[in-house]
Amino acid sequence: MEENEGLPRRAADGLTRRALLVGIGAAGGAGAMYAAMGVLGLAPSKTTTPVPVTPGATAPTPYVPPQRSDFALRGGRAGTVLVLGAGVAGLACAYELGKAGYDCTVLEARDGIGGRSITLRGGDTLTELAASPVAGVADGALGETQRVGFGAGTYFNAGPARIAQWMVTLDYCRELGVPLEVFVNTNASAYVLTAGMRRPVRVRTARADAYGYISELLAKATDAGALDARLTKADKERLLDFLSDFGAIGPEHEYTGSERRGFRVDPGVRPGTDLGTPPPLTQVLAEGLGRVLTMDAGYDQAMPMFQPVGGMDAIVRALAARVGAGRVRTGARVTRIMNRPDGVEVTVEGGGVLRADYCVAALPPHVMAKIPGNLGTDVVAALATPTPMSAGKLGLEYRRRWWEIEDRIYGGATETDLDIGHIWYPSYGFHGERGLVVGYYNTAQDAEIYEGLPHAERLRQALDQGAKVHGPAYAKGILASASIAWRRQPHIEGAWVSWPSRNGFSLLQRPAGRVYFAGDWLSHLVAWQAGAFESARKVVTEIHHRVLKEA
Amino acid sequence: MEENEGLPRRAADGLTRRALLVGIGAAGGAGAMYAAMGVLGLAPSKTTTPVPVTPGATAPTPYVPPQRSDFALRGGRAGTVLVLGAGVAGLACAYELGKAGYDCTVLEARDGIGGRSITLRGGDTLTELAASPVAGVADGALGETQRVGFGAGTYFNAGPARIAQWMVTLDYCRELGVPLEVFVNTNASAYVLTAGMRRPVRVRTARADAYGYISELLAKATDAGALDARLTKADKERLLDFLSDFGAIGPEHEYTGSERRGFRVDPGVRPGTDLGTPPPLTQVLAEGLGRVLTMDAGYDQAMPMFQPVGGMDAIVRALAARVGAGRVRTGARVTRIMNRPDGVEVTVEGGGVLRADYCVAALPPHVMAKIPGNLGTDVVAALATPTPMSAGKLGLEYRRRWWEIEDRIYGGATETDLDIGHIWYPSYGFHGERGLVVGYYNTAQDAEIYEGLPHAERLRQALDQGAKVHGPAYAKGILASASIAWRRQPHIEGAWVSWPSRNGFSLLQRPAGRVYFAGDWLSHLVAWQAGAFESARKVVTEIHHRVLKEA
Repeated sequence: MEENEGLPRRAADGLTRRALLVGIGAAGGAGAMYAAMGVLGLAPSKTTTPVPVTPGATAPTPYVPPQRSDFALRGGRAGTVLVLGAGVAGLACAYELGKAGYDCTVLEARDGIGGRSITLRGGDTLTELAASPVAGVADGALGETQRVGFGAGTYFNAGPARIAQWMVTLDYCRELGVPLEVFVNTNASAYVLTAGMRRPVRVRTARADAYGYISELLAKATDAGALDARLTKADKERLLDFLSDFGAIGPEHEYTGSERRGFRVDPGVRPGTDLGTPPPLTQVLAEGLGRVLTMDAGYDQAMPMFQPVGGMDAIVRALAARVGAGRVRTGARVTRIMNRPDGVEVTVEGGGVLRADYCVAALPPHVMAKIPGNLGTDVVAALATPTPMSAGKLGLEYRRRWWEIEDRIYGGATETDLDIGHIWYPSYGFHGERGLVVGYYNTAQDAEIYEGLPHAERLRQALDQGAKVHGPAYAKGILASASIAWRRQPHIEGAWVSWPSRNGFSLLQRPAGRVYFAGDWLSHLVAWQAGAFESARKVVTEIHHRVLKEA
Repeated sequence: MEENEGLPRRAADGLTRRALLVGIGAAGGAGAMYAAMGVLGLAPSKTTTPVPVTPGATAPTPYVPPQRSDFALRGGRAGTVLVLGAGVAGLACAYELGKAGYDCTVLEARDGIGGRSITLRGGDTLTELAASPVAGVADGALGETQRVGFGAGTYFNAGPARIAQWMVTLDYCRELGVPLEVFVNTNASAYVLTAGMRRPVRVRTARADAYGYISELLAKATDAGALDARLTKADKERLLDFLSDFGAIGPEHEYTGSERRGFRVDPGVRPGTDLGTPPPLTQVLAEGLGRVLTMDAGYDQAMPMFQPVGGMDAIVRALAARVGAGRVRTGARVTRIMNRPDGVEVTVEGGGVLRADYCVAALPPHVMAKIPGNLGTDVVAALATPTPMSAGKLGLEYRRRWWEIEDRIYGGATETDLDIGHIWYPSYGFHGERGLVVGYYNTAQDAEIYEGLPHAERLRQALDQGAKVHGPAYAKGILASASIAWRRQPHIEGAWVSWPSRNGFSLLQRPAGRVYFAGDWLSHLVAWQAGAFESARKVVTEIHHRVLKEA
């Protein structure tokens, strides 16, 4: 559930999460590793018991935001709150506190709202830091500015791009009237290209072969009596029934292919022409398909997923509209945060000192850690604990939707072991004239390769890589492009964070005096907007309880 | 690929298709069965060789409809064509022939166009035959009429409801400007309720447990050396790697559950609370999950699938608009079809005799077989060969979208072994006020149960069954409902057909004199609109070639 907005198994399980756990394991042994797995939501809890699956019974208790009526009943004074950061967490805090009558001001260092929820359209500009912080370049110096040249109707969700059904983000879409449509997260017609493959194969073909051979192997082991100690006769019959369906294996339990692989010529008036004999077992095993074929098994990745119609920033725009434009100050960089006995003092560059009863710091922790103040050394150390991670995306606007017309791919992703990671096909504008392909969505080391490059070089390299999937025509017919390297975004400086230890995480769940912390980085849904919303809901509830208590 | 528009594995593989093959096998032995599998597109062809998967290389040759210029170049006379039936096949014939300047008239016995592509909305009426033809009631007598009371914006695709990416139907949507959106065919958050289960389980949970135990069994058999004769050391390592991903099994290769099962309390600021220990292996095997978990492996069922925005009938409406309203005569029942040396004569009830150069009979074969004429006994016998099949659907309009709000299910289907088959959740109108659930979509024996009942009884029984999944509240908050029993639809009398032998199929691919036959029933995509389109394209091409030759 960590760091995997947009990065399926590979980075989430393969690189980042596994690396994190290994790091803790090395330092603290298996116990510490297990504890970390617990705090990150990875390990099964031992304390829970099965509950009856009565539909609706699993629905979470509805969130009740602070209500204005709470004050009316108790005579309290709602008070003032300074919210630092107009990303999802900050805006959600101001929105929920506003419902209860709090006087909120949101300070945003960037020129626009939304934080990482950036949707790029024609006419937008995107400025990066001069070079990646990892490269050690002077902090804050600005570098290249991209002028986005996409046509009307084309948008590129440079940050979050998809929402799982269970996430609270959907509730906010409902409440805010943000219309939704399906985001195609996996597509059987898209391709796979792993290091073990000589050429790309359709997901459906790779899946049919893997499931077919797995079923053949297990069925034959069962036939040979290898599972007699474990399975009853009835179990074995049921297992073989299951495997027949699951692998489409024949009566002799051989896998020889099936219509699930797809066709060279599709069925129509005549039967379809098949793709030929499946590759041998040893080759299918060498293709290393585990990651690709389990991507949509993840709780946060399973189909269907959703996106706001017209761009992800519809959510932050709707939040900001409810908060009120006059309460959100962009271009307001905070240079100092001071806890005082009766409130907080926040200094804004070129904008004097603002005072309020409370403050919610909804900035990335590594950015917050650099702001002077009197939060205490423990707090600053905790803020500096999580590691900002790299991720990048490239949007390619094509003149025509060749992936639909020629490849018959409508949305979804091609998964690769190349440094581009995924190629995403758009889940909107089907059959339109133009379309936007995400030429890479990569993370960690792969993203670091691209983040050091100027846009033109990113583009060139990504097109070379994509051609390994789609052939040389991949580089043709591009009308416009834009790329983002999240470590190089001013005032953000990272795609999300990775927690190397739980200590800082716990400390920052509590306020430092009158300063509260909020963000996806303080949740078990790191890198998801839902984490930001959940964290915001917690913090505003805590502030409100405190105010009521002190009233 | 047969008879499975809308019916995933169960009816397609489990009942209808298997029953068909068994029937042929009993009569003709294994050779005949294999031949039938070939003609129905089920068996791998031996003549094909693997082709390089260069994207685009697998795209089919574009269809070039008959062009008006063909005549201009050769001086031919396009001629007149009578098309019988304004379903997808008939309208597609008239549309494609019209492009080349043919003078077409479409005769439709029903009051409306579209054939089985019926989308029901508020204000529509739906009349059934007095009782199912299987029950032996007098042919043609009318029975109950339902007045559809759905609210504005609610629609119910009573016939076809989804389109696979590779199907030519999508090309027609592009050509005709019919906007598309994703149809959610499978949903990890929906439920499964098989005969082996005491209560419904989320698809994701059932899937995680099945894959987990399969992986554990195969990994342990591998560990124990049971596959040493088949696998090299490298193969074994790769297999175990794959199984670790695929089953989320632990380092000792035990399956003990994973986050893929879902959570009792979702992760947020705190880690998620898991669902408890997975059921034991023997129970998971007894649940009989093969059909449900392989549904989206089918070439025609894999996600994502698509639907026209606003209702499936957008396609037939667009076709009819291009054909021209004046060329389509509804309420025109054909009572006689005569081949003459220089043309065809078609008698319309109360409408005299129409003459044309050619005729395309795009009616269901069992309906066509009953129309008198001089097509010959072989042809009539062939038309009477395929068996019309039963299928039914029930649309339930609810006051509120409880499946989204409480169950967090956005589209997709709950699969059951109950006589209702599936419960479909709508793939449109997310977060709207009302919503339409398909309370059953069943086939074959299950459909026959419902087709004999009046609507009110169907409704009552389906609500009782659905309550086994969704609890007693399932019957509450229903604003309107409508049901269809395809065997009882006048002039259609079946959901689709099943071919008990290939003989008739081949004969009817050829014209009987000047009468051509078209429909999904003459394709290897029975029950799919794509089959109707493909058949229409074949027939119009043949007619045009003949006309050019005779010119």
